[in-house]
Amino acid sequence: MGNIREIAKLAGVSVSTVSRVLNNHPYVKEEKRKAVWEAVEKLNYTKNINAVHLAKGKTSIIGVVLPYVNHPYFSTIVEGISMEALQCGYHLLLFQTSYEANKEIEALEMLKMKQVDGIIICSRTIHWEWIEAYKDYGPIVLCENVKGKDMLSVYINHYQAFKLGMNYLIEKGHRKIGYCIGRTTGTNSKAREDAYYEALKQINESPRPEWIFDHCLYIEDGKRVVTSLLTMKERPTALLVSSDQVAAGIVTFAQHKGMKIPEELAILSFDNHPISEALHITTIELPLSLMGKRAFRMIYNHLESGEMTKKTEELSVHLVERLTV
Amino acid sequence: MGNIREIAKLAGVSVSTVSRVLNNHPYVKEEKRKAVWEAVEKLNYTKNINAVHLAKGKTSIIGVVLPYVNHPYFSTIVEGISMEALQCGYHLLLFQTSYEANKEIEALEMLKMKQVDGIIICSRTIHWEWIEAYKDYGPIVLCENVKGKDMLSVYINHYQAFKLGMNYLIEKGHRKIGYCIGRTTGTNSKAREDAYYEALKQINESPRPEWIFDHCLYIEDGKRVVTSLLTMKERPTALLVSSDQVAAGIVTFAQHKGMKIPEELAILSFDNHPISEALHITTIELPLSLMGKRAFRMIYNHLESGEMTKKTEELSVHLVERLTV
Repeated sequence: MGNIREIAKLAGVSVSTVSRVLNNHPYVKEEKRKAVWEAVEKLNYTKNINAVHLAKGKTSIIGVVLPYVNHPYFSTIVEGISMEALQCGYHLLLFQTSYEANKEIEALEMLKMKQVDGIIICSRTIHWEWIEAYKDYGPIVLCENVKGKDMLSVYINHYQAFKLGMNYLIEKGHRKIGYCIGRTTGTNSKAREDAYYEALKQINESPRPEWIFDHCLYIEDGKRVVTSLLTMKERPTALLVSSDQVAAGIVTFAQHKGMKIPEELAILSFDNHPISEALHITTIELPLSLMGKRAFRMIYNHLESGEMTKKTEELSVHLVERLTV
Repeated sequence: MGNIREIAKLAGVSVSTVSRVLNNHPYVKEEKRKAVWEAVEKLNYTKNINAVHLAKGKTSIIGVVLPYVNHPYFSTIVEGISMEALQCGYHLLLFQTSYEANKEIEALEMLKMKQVDGIIICSRTIHWEWIEAYKDYGPIVLCENVKGKDMLSVYINHYQAFKLGMNYLIEKGHRKIGYCIGRTTGTNSKAREDAYYEALKQINESPRPEWIFDHCLYIEDGKRVVTSLLTMKERPTALLVSSDQVAAGIVTFAQHKGMKIPEELAILSFDNHPISEALHITTIELPLSLMGKRAFRMIYNHLESGEMTKKTEELSVHLVERLTV
């Protein structure tokens, strides 16, 4: 495909006519449509993308490693990456891993084999060493705190975010606090766990394992949490919930079951996705789309300028007070 | 990367030890971890994915064309595609187009240049002819009714789905019916429009342009619809809403504004995403994940068997009655 100007020139029509044909506009004369067509056909044969890539030694493809495509936490990061990638003429190769180690390694292998120019790891299960072994093959950005390691990273400080949430609940008088999380393993989850235990320690409360809910990712998981709460003799008075989706499930199902929110159960969520606004859920905003954008920019700058300095960027969060605490 | 058995053999450890190292399990002796590591290093050098692809003449990459990554309608399709692709050892290259014609054409160009083995077009803006010109370069599956054209397609009959919705609203006594849609152009949108006009004609009602809401995609668009309804002298008594997200926005914001649902405004939505269950929204279930799976399988069968017959598959929908009609 030549650009739109080349097509217009060759077809002997205006740029806006080419645009109308491209965008499937109804009022274009058949004769002009045909001319545009023929011009495209001719220009098709004058360019070979593979040859360009070979010459440049790059593919203009960035690999994105993430566990679930269909979760707003990750699809929002991908949207951010995608927006910047489009502007820079890059494409995204998705590795939906379901946290299977071999799928993550496959992505790293493709970096090594020069099938992608760089990799963004949104979340991972493999050991740190595995990633480090590939770092000389091209830029790898992690969306987690790499703590002084020589890697590119842009991350949300989940320790601070959870601490902020805990302190807010404690200020509001809560002492029996539980939390819901996507998985209990992983760097970000460990950071959240640390913040939770430390905050409890500060108010001399012991953690209660039954108030920690694992595998909470989707709206329907909120239903499971409420069902479980209803069977407990002693319930927490507040929950930190690591995803707006799960919080939405908890709030709607708890209300359905006659539980008063926040009187009987306070909910403090994370993300500030539109669903939390619609349901008036108090939440801590996580800049996920921004994180995706910055991650792409790090790779891009690295590739374009050959800059080798490894950078780490921390993104800040803030509390959005609504009606569930 | 060799497979897990090869690594275990070379490292002189069990398969489960390799698995524990891969999955970052804490209790593995340093000596064994090191052995696994060295085995991986060695195996790395025995395989070159590019060479395999060159020999096979394929990349094991499928291009996916979609307007927005971060919308549940599309991310659910991508999830379906991704699940099947993983099983078959394929990867997805995403083309987030924002309905820009040149981004769609770029994907087709990559098929031509053999940078992807096939393409799934979830939604498009370019003219039919543009796609047809690339059909000999590899399998292209469209998620729309291609009406007897010689192309692969798997689709939801949006005409029938909208008709089902209109008939249900009419049965419930509604005559003043409006609708909300993502965009008014596109094959699927035209099908919905036809169903809407025909149903109105059957009850001798004239369409009211101000009751048709365009650009409705996200929860926040529901807020805009309600705000607009509140300024109208004469309002529709029911809305067909082409996305659960938008319906969620309408329902929550309308209730916030004191509007009674369904008494003052009935809402019939589409998708049956978890949010509609949480908010008790009556909806028509669209098999989006299944559509993604089937689309991938069509490409896969085409690639693996070399089968050239073009197939079209229609997926059925069904109504889920809840509390908003």
